[in-house]
Amino acid sequence: MTDQDYMNRALELARSVMVSTSPNPRVGCVIVSNGQILGEGATQPPGGPHAEVCAIRDAQQKGHELRGTTFYVTLEPCSHYGRTPPCVDALLAVEPARVVIAARDPNPLVSGAGIRKLQEAGIIVDLGLGLEQALEINPGFVSRMSIQRPWVRMKIASTLDGKVALNNGRSQWITGSAARLDGHHWRARACVILTGSGTVRDDDPLLTVRGVDTPRQPVRAVIDSQFAIDEDARLFDGGPVWIFVTEYNADKAARLAARNVRVITVAEKNNHVDLKAVMAWLGQQDINEVHVEAGPGLNGALLQAGCVDELLVYMAPKILGEARSAVAHRPFTVLADAYQFAFFDTTACGDDLRLRARLPMRWNQLQLQSGATPTSDTE
Amino acid sequence: MTDQDYMNRALELARSVMVSTSPNPRVGCVIVSNGQILGEGATQPPGGPHAEVCAIRDAQQKGHELRGTTFYVTLEPCSHYGRTPPCVDALLAVEPARVVIAARDPNPLVSGAGIRKLQEAGIIVDLGLGLEQALEINPGFVSRMSIQRPWVRMKIASTLDGKVALNNGRSQWITGSAARLDGHHWRARACVILTGSGTVRDDDPLLTVRGVDTPRQPVRAVIDSQFAIDEDARLFDGGPVWIFVTEYNADKAARLAARNVRVITVAEKNNHVDLKAVMAWLGQQDINEVHVEAGPGLNGALLQAGCVDELLVYMAPKILGEARSAVAHRPFTVLADAYQFAFFDTTACGDDLRLRARLPMRWNQLQLQSGATPTSDTE
Repeated sequence: MTDQDYMNRALELARSVMVSTSPNPRVGCVIVSNGQILGEGATQPPGGPHAEVCAIRDAQQKGHELRGTTFYVTLEPCSHYGRTPPCVDALLAVEPARVVIAARDPNPLVSGAGIRKLQEAGIIVDLGLGLEQALEINPGFVSRMSIQRPWVRMKIASTLDGKVALNNGRSQWITGSAARLDGHHWRARACVILTGSGTVRDDDPLLTVRGVDTPRQPVRAVIDSQFAIDEDARLFDGGPVWIFVTEYNADKAARLAARNVRVITVAEKNNHVDLKAVMAWLGQQDINEVHVEAGPGLNGALLQAGCVDELLVYMAPKILGEARSAVAHRPFTVLADAYQFAFFDTTACGDDLRLRARLPMRWNQLQLQSGATPTSDTE
Repeated sequence: MTDQDYMNRALELARSVMVSTSPNPRVGCVIVSNGQILGEGATQPPGGPHAEVCAIRDAQQKGHELRGTTFYVTLEPCSHYGRTPPCVDALLAVEPARVVIAARDPNPLVSGAGIRKLQEAGIIVDLGLGLEQALEINPGFVSRMSIQRPWVRMKIASTLDGKVALNNGRSQWITGSAARLDGHHWRARACVILTGSGTVRDDDPLLTVRGVDTPRQPVRAVIDSQFAIDEDARLFDGGPVWIFVTEYNADKAARLAARNVRVITVAEKNNHVDLKAVMAWLGQQDINEVHVEAGPGLNGALLQAGCVDELLVYMAPKILGEARSAVAHRPFTVLADAYQFAFFDTTACGDDLRLRARLPMRWNQLQLQSGATPTSDTE
């Protein structure tokens, strides 16, 4: 077993709590001595212990002495009092010899301070092993901590020729059941599922997580400048819903408030909700990842506003010809103006493909925040 | 080294002559005895020796005795006189103990007869090892032999949202240089590169193979019902060009004939060249693989006519919004009417992805022609 193997196990533990730690980051920790794993842990739901403390308790319950051990942890141990005491103090108390950390904590209250405290106690600290994978587990947390905005992932289910619905509006189903179930996993890890008023009007979706074991449902959010949403929409099922409007209506808002709906008035931009302002507001609400399932109009507006960090495209091996495209956006006159992402993951989902792509600039920003050196070629 | 390893080597040899054997199939052969490769061969250009004879000569030149050896050959040895004597006689002459064959020869003059002749001579014959890969090397030959039509591969270079050009027509370049070079490899293996009169008018392409070492250029073919093609098109460079028309013009045809251009009058169907008739005619001309690089109109017409067997899609991680789609086709009213392919290969090409998909029914037809048992699950 190598450092990489132990870190892989810690990353696996972090992934195992993907749907339960928000707004805290998903973190995994493994404690090793003489080639033996003494304890393991992953961050518990908010208010509960973090990964390092869980791993220490696990090891101690098994009767292990932790002095001189090596910790593998996917995120820099926190050094500040939040809902729980600083993890770095728990580490110092058991006196490990070495701590291997995948990513620096981008939290300005921590960033580097946890590492310094460990080093000052004479502990060897290695940073950067598994950084890329660690970052993929917490892009929203890193984004929120560094630029006060969530990480926005836009989901599209299209044919091979880029069509998402027939001209008559039918879209059930472009992709198969495996792709649709996979989509629910991505909904589950998000803090907010964002859509537009057009989709609510036309499809009346629930936008809940189904078929995935999760302790919490994400908040559903709707961009609805005119506040025209039908009060009988299936979305209003008692779970939290946020509606972003420019035209406020106090009576309607009051009726909806009784049904766990919050109406947020946002500045107008181009006769539309200012989407950058929405993202900033979501960041203030401790929202890490936003999952967009919207129609062509909102998809295009989000791209134009610079509010799309990642694309999650389920592509069916079908050709439809004349039909609706995924993104409505004024025509460009030069190709260089196209929105340019970078593919980073291609996976089969039943008969369909799942293609993931992200904005290279934004990803690079997160990498730097996580301690990657500017010259490193981690992609 | 296992049977699979030797067959893999034979398949590699077959692939090495991808651009030079047409209209003959690409075939590789390896002769093995006591774990040692005694000889290797691949089909030579038309009129030259086939793979088995090349491998026998190679082994004999090295002084090897071939009695009792095992032959690994990617296609059933031919049993009829074509441009060369039957390969099966060459095999019988050296008295191997065993012949392992990937795919049955679909040529009705051969199909199974070569295998029977070997078996009657007491040679052990194993059929089917590497069948799927062997078929991917010669889909056009198998198609032409079994249903007298070439295998038609449609190439598309699109963005992630399915756009192939801006509204102003610009399409250079949607994809990067790696994808474009890869595209030339697919042109090179085709016997015909097919396009439409609109593409010739708008883009004035050469449609030649560039950047790939090839002994021959495919024939360029144009669907041009009205025979409206500009006689100054760059396509008319001295290399062979075929034009399919419904409106014949003897004077124009005579002028073009002097420049190596053949004009073929085809039956009309829906005010358009009958595309199925074009494919039947191409089959009669010993055309194995047709590579389509056309605009949305011809792409849609070929799909509608049932003339597309495979899609070769280069996809750039870009979003364009309002722009031209790859396929023009009347809108469907139910999703089940979509053209349904199956993905079978996804490969990175620089920053782009290459997605390959094919018609499951057509592929299954070729599999059966190649000796796959109807119940086999080779996909």
